[in-house]
Amino acid sequence: MNDQTKVDRSALKVVGTRPIRPDGADKVMGRANFGADLRLPGMLEGRVKRSPHAHARILGIDTTKARALPGVKAIVTAADFPDLEAVAAEIGEGAATLRDIGRNILARDKVLYVGHPVAAVAATSIEIAAQALAVIEVNYEVLPHVIDVEAAMAPDAPVLHADMFTKGVKPTPIKASNIAQKIGLSRGDAAAAFADPTLAEVVVQGRYVTAPVHQGYLEPNACVASAGSDGQYTLWVSTQGHFVVRTLCSRLLHIPLSDLRVIAAEIGGGFGAKTTVYLEPLALALSRQCGRPVRMVMSRAEVFESTGPTSGGVTEVKLAAKRDGTITAAEVLMKYQAGAFAGSSVNNAGMCALASYDVANIAITGYDVVSNRPKCAAYRAPGSPLSAFAIESAIDELALELGMDPIDLRLKNIVRSGSQTVYGATLRDIAFAETLEAIKSHPHWRAPLPANTGRGVALGFWFNGGYESSAAVHIAEDGTATVVTGSPDIGGSRASMAMMAAETIGLPYERVRAIVADTQAIGYTFVTGGSRVTFATGMAVVQASQKVIEDLKRRAALTWACDISKVEWRDGAAHCTESAKPQQALGLKAIAGKAAQTGGPIGAEVSLNAQGQSPGFAVHVCDIEVDPETGRSTVVRYTAAQDVGRAIHPSYVEGQMQGGAAQGIGWALNEAYLYDARGAMLNPGFLDYRMPVASDLPMIDTIMIEVAPNPRHPYGAKGVGEAPIVPPLAACANAVSHAINRRMRELPLAPPSVLAALQSDQ
Amino acid sequence: MNDQTKVDRSALKVVGTRPIRPDGADKVMGRANFGADLRLPGMLEGRVKRSPHAHARILGIDTTKARALPGVKAIVTAADFPDLEAVAAEIGEGAATLRDIGRNILARDKVLYVGHPVAAVAATSIEIAAQALAVIEVNYEVLPHVIDVEAAMAPDAPVLHADMFTKGVKPTPIKASNIAQKIGLSRGDAAAAFADPTLAEVVVQGRYVTAPVHQGYLEPNACVASAGSDGQYTLWVSTQGHFVVRTLCSRLLHIPLSDLRVIAAEIGGGFGAKTTVYLEPLALALSRQCGRPVRMVMSRAEVFESTGPTSGGVTEVKLAAKRDGTITAAEVLMKYQAGAFAGSSVNNAGMCALASYDVANIAITGYDVVSNRPKCAAYRAPGSPLSAFAIESAIDELALELGMDPIDLRLKNIVRSGSQTVYGATLRDIAFAETLEAIKSHPHWRAPLPANTGRGVALGFWFNGGYESSAAVHIAEDGTATVVTGSPDIGGSRASMAMMAAETIGLPYERVRAIVADTQAIGYTFVTGGSRVTFATGMAVVQASQKVIEDLKRRAALTWACDISKVEWRDGAAHCTESAKPQQALGLKAIAGKAAQTGGPIGAEVSLNAQGQSPGFAVHVCDIEVDPETGRSTVVRYTAAQDVGRAIHPSYVEGQMQGGAAQGIGWALNEAYLYDARGAMLNPGFLDYRMPVASDLPMIDTIMIEVAPNPRHPYGAKGVGEAPIVPPLAACANAVSHAINRRMRELPLAPPSVLAALQSDQ
Repeated sequence: MNDQTKVDRSALKVVGTRPIRPDGADKVMGRANFGADLRLPGMLEGRVKRSPHAHARILGIDTTKARALPGVKAIVTAADFPDLEAVAAEIGEGAATLRDIGRNILARDKVLYVGHPVAAVAATSIEIAAQALAVIEVNYEVLPHVIDVEAAMAPDAPVLHADMFTKGVKPTPIKASNIAQKIGLSRGDAAAAFADPTLAEVVVQGRYVTAPVHQGYLEPNACVASAGSDGQYTLWVSTQGHFVVRTLCSRLLHIPLSDLRVIAAEIGGGFGAKTTVYLEPLALALSRQCGRPVRMVMSRAEVFESTGPTSGGVTEVKLAAKRDGTITAAEVLMKYQAGAFAGSSVNNAGMCALASYDVANIAITGYDVVSNRPKCAAYRAPGSPLSAFAIESAIDELALELGMDPIDLRLKNIVRSGSQTVYGATLRDIAFAETLEAIKSHPHWRAPLPANTGRGVALGFWFNGGYESSAAVHIAEDGTATVVTGSPDIGGSRASMAMMAAETIGLPYERVRAIVADTQAIGYTFVTGGSRVTFATGMAVVQASQKVIEDLKRRAALTWACDISKVEWRDGAAHCTESAKPQQALGLKAIAGKAAQTGGPIGAEVSLNAQGQSPGFAVHVCDIEVDPETGRSTVVRYTAAQDVGRAIHPSYVEGQMQGGAAQGIGWALNEAYLYDARGAMLNPGFLDYRMPVASDLPMIDTIMIEVAPNPRHPYGAKGVGEAPIVPPLAACANAVSHAINRRMRELPLAPPSVLAALQSDQ
Repeated sequence: MNDQTKVDRSALKVVGTRPIRPDGADKVMGRANFGADLRLPGMLEGRVKRSPHAHARILGIDTTKARALPGVKAIVTAADFPDLEAVAAEIGEGAATLRDIGRNILARDKVLYVGHPVAAVAATSIEIAAQALAVIEVNYEVLPHVIDVEAAMAPDAPVLHADMFTKGVKPTPIKASNIAQKIGLSRGDAAAAFADPTLAEVVVQGRYVTAPVHQGYLEPNACVASAGSDGQYTLWVSTQGHFVVRTLCSRLLHIPLSDLRVIAAEIGGGFGAKTTVYLEPLALALSRQCGRPVRMVMSRAEVFESTGPTSGGVTEVKLAAKRDGTITAAEVLMKYQAGAFAGSSVNNAGMCALASYDVANIAITGYDVVSNRPKCAAYRAPGSPLSAFAIESAIDELALELGMDPIDLRLKNIVRSGSQTVYGATLRDIAFAETLEAIKSHPHWRAPLPANTGRGVALGFWFNGGYESSAAVHIAEDGTATVVTGSPDIGGSRASMAMMAAETIGLPYERVRAIVADTQAIGYTFVTGGSRVTFATGMAVVQASQKVIEDLKRRAALTWACDISKVEWRDGAAHCTESAKPQQALGLKAIAGKAAQTGGPIGAEVSLNAQGQSPGFAVHVCDIEVDPETGRSTVVRYTAAQDVGRAIHPSYVEGQMQGGAAQGIGWALNEAYLYDARGAMLNPGFLDYRMPVASDLPMIDTIMIEVAPNPRHPYGAKGVGEAPIVPPLAACANAVSHAINRRMRELPLAPPSVLAALQSDQ
């Protein structure tokens, strides 16, 4: 671990240290309670009946035999859910999304992919539930299906939604198609620039293809729902955002938010995909029907076949540059898979595509395309890795064409503080150049390359989010503190939240513990995602801590009978600055022990909509050795640098950088959904869907750039979780391309593809 | 139900109505989760090895054989707990209590009652745990024991604690005894008044005896403890106060408060007894030892034999009065059982004894006495029923002696607003006289009495508590609200808290739900007890609701771009009073839906130490028919009147009045601990320990007196839970005494005692 820390940390006692993760031991020991670990008296097991067809009309569902089975307590189909078209009117914006979620969790008229749920059963055992599924009779009219994105865009493609007319096109098309939306982003005049030989001295172009990949969380989706006899519901669920689950279930089932308490279980990974609902509304509906708690847990195959992978797609890039390396124009065309319902990551991908570069003339076009695959879900920096793969590959091609060092070419063109992005934001307080320079001056960049080995570099950008967070800080009678948030802890946020509270209040880290509270116990908090938690929830924690300090000062002033303006708080104690008063300090523990006498328990809760995030910039370099006989690529060295603002808990920042790199490497080299002719996934298991494991990867070296702490966060934090998955796709492709001296423009770079390239003429 | 409501309720929309209890249906349907209902993966079953002797020295405990049993995972004895003498020094006040709790949950050197725990075992099944208990070998030196309170005070009694020297006596005694403390309270000169024939025109005296009775909660003590690998603990427990459980376990086990999360399960009754710990520290210690969750549940016999009954005791009363009925002097001598460790209810009993009467000369003496019985615990208005039984019986005797109507005699002597009690408080805003008048004018009081039937009247006083409470109010995006408190819901507080929030904010009751949060999720909250929750936690709820309203007004002002001083909140909506601005209202739902845009989620948390409770005064009248052949007493009519301030949810106030009366009737007529010669309880089960059931009692009529709302509570609430258990003992005894024309001065008034009295000459 290589800290290039220029931040003055002398004043900080806790922030920037690396204490032990409080929830770590239980997770390692198998004692933490995940989504499937709860048992309630009378609890039933729920299972889902899924479509065997990629595209079919549902002519009828007969549950008579299933209901007659002893032990079967409840069965739901779409008929048991409210008509979301009606809800849509009330909700306005986002209504289509909600309607689609409703149709995705339980098919209404058509099944749109193999694995699409058609019914759910709750029974006294998993075995009986499975029996019930087997005897539910669904009468299908099988329809032609389409899997590939460009095939789905063809005029004669089977159309999934008869009521879908491409948005973003004027005049609105009169024929339904699989193109949900066309987007465009532009600046300057790209067409004119490409036509101007003084600007377009060099032009490169390419067509880059990525496969949809699954988020690959280890814990399958799981929940337990309990509908009370009093109209109140409780839901335990493995999720990145129990408040969002509450909102969605509330709308899908017409339950007031105050009647639905959602408790976040420990979560075994989510990576963006556990920000929506699949089983949860079914479990609630089943429990409501039979009045008993219902547990639902997916198998690994169900996770693959019916929860969101990320978009795959085709990105065409054309770049123009002057001979000195100034990039003058860029055209980007994206065709991205949304899965069965609208909503690929094409919007984000468009905004991120050229966010790293200051290019005067830009034209970006994108298509959001549905096909007979599971509905896509968010995956770490949704969209950005896809467009970055294309742009960073094209930049590499341009560097070769120009004969320039690929880092120098990038340094010449990257955004700086003050740059305005094509999507409108003005960048402030960024240390992107320093991050690139750190890689340039790193021994890795200068190390000699053995035979059959190539080196690739690539950049990555992510917005980083703010949004709503709430936090409370409670001081116990013994002077220890509890931090309460609504952010499920995925990357170590219990530790980092406790650290920021400890730093602010002046307590040792060990005397502060953080918990994740349920939706009713703490204020609304948006998902753990968008690289927002350390920033936004951290800000709420610090503000709550500051309110606690104000209260502690008030108690001290009361105790000393002095004016509160004469009380200072430092080093975890109140100090009286009034000359006539005794100068001794009154520590937190002493004040806490007498709280009842000075007004009652000490604590504060803060809710906010955090503003002022700073985007994330990552630069990765990797060396890949290609076995010329098999085409197998092995990552032999990998270094990741990132503008992290200030690292609250450096080990977790490094962990995010390493985790993002590892996932990106898997995306680049091996992962893909393979389909048979019927549109069924061929590899819905970890043996055949090949994610990298520890033995596949070298130690990933990390360089945290801490020269530009975010001035809009109390401790300078910037989001760090997503940027690191953006560069690896292109970094790996560039490395393999150099290793085999052939440009690889389609992922994954699986051995057969690489071998084919090696055996080609190019 | 008979409301004598003089309060103007016209302005109130929710407070004072009787909505359905939200947790009621689940409790009735058997779906609510109580202390024993949780299952965790790997959970063990814990059981306690208990003393078969009433008094013995522990010479050794050999757990070798038990540890060798397959399936036994952990065993603890007192040796596994820290030396509380050391902790005591740190804690100061209350240290002795803590040390005693430590010795009570697990005997250290001596066992002091049959059922006193000596070891605890956690095993993979209850059966294996039971086997393990059987092979734990304890070597005892059996000592002489003493059960009766007066026997325990005798100079030659076996002494339980060699280090206990009667407190409250000067000079401090040099010989250890079973008298833990002597207390005294006085006013004027009682001795001189008794000696003055103009003041003591009439003198009555008597010796009144009560039996210790159990709180009789239906749910046996139960908990599940889970010690994490990271030094953090979670405890699920049926309790009246999870914060108090946290404090006690933290001190008994040396766990920082921030490391111990206590979650209150639903509670099947507590009545004061579930405000301390028995199994909880054992379960935590067992879980810590083996790293697995441990569940512990008592049997009914264990509940009787080793959890606190209330004190029993002897109260001697002497009253002097003038012929006109003015009571001029009172002497009270109390000898109360504490059980095996100091701490009977004698202090409270002394303060309550004459709190209902304005008597110029008072001398009260009390003794807190240990004996070989389970350590007493609080029971609804602890102490007050014992001294009230004596005083209210003596007043009845005085009325007979004077030939006065017992209500008129009381009306002549009771305290009024402005009276100062013997313990120092000045009474304010009380409606005691109105309560007595209500009974006097009630048809019951004038109804003719059939043969063999007597009528008794008695008064009851209780302090009513304030103490620390916390509450948060969260507004969800759909405009519904959640109220968060730390008060376990025993008497319907989820409903009453939601009602007060709904009233304050201007929401319909159905759009507000209340939850009971765990110790880490909400600020410190003292027990559900002391008749404090509706008052103190309600005050916190109202204050949090008011903070929410301030925030809602701020959002509205922001939306309208007007000054917040021009925004009024009424009927659940903001109204702009600025003449230039549109006058339309902005409702809660509209503001909540846009909260993200106006600063983030809406909510507030408040903690306070509530001041300004108002004591409770109850007047009960009952008619009892005595079967002259068997001595069996049957309550044929019962009316309870009470000064309730203002009833937030009248049905629950009536429920408290009825429940208190029912428990007091059981205490008066049937309940008692019966001991064999070895000091073992003979009747540790509901078949032999005879609590009244529904078929034993008539409908208990209630009269809520609402003429004096408490001006120090936003909705005028006074505590109501405890006062109603105070009068029934004397009311029943007076009724039986009148029915059989013989004074009954010892409880319970079981058929054999009454028959014996009937057959006596008196």
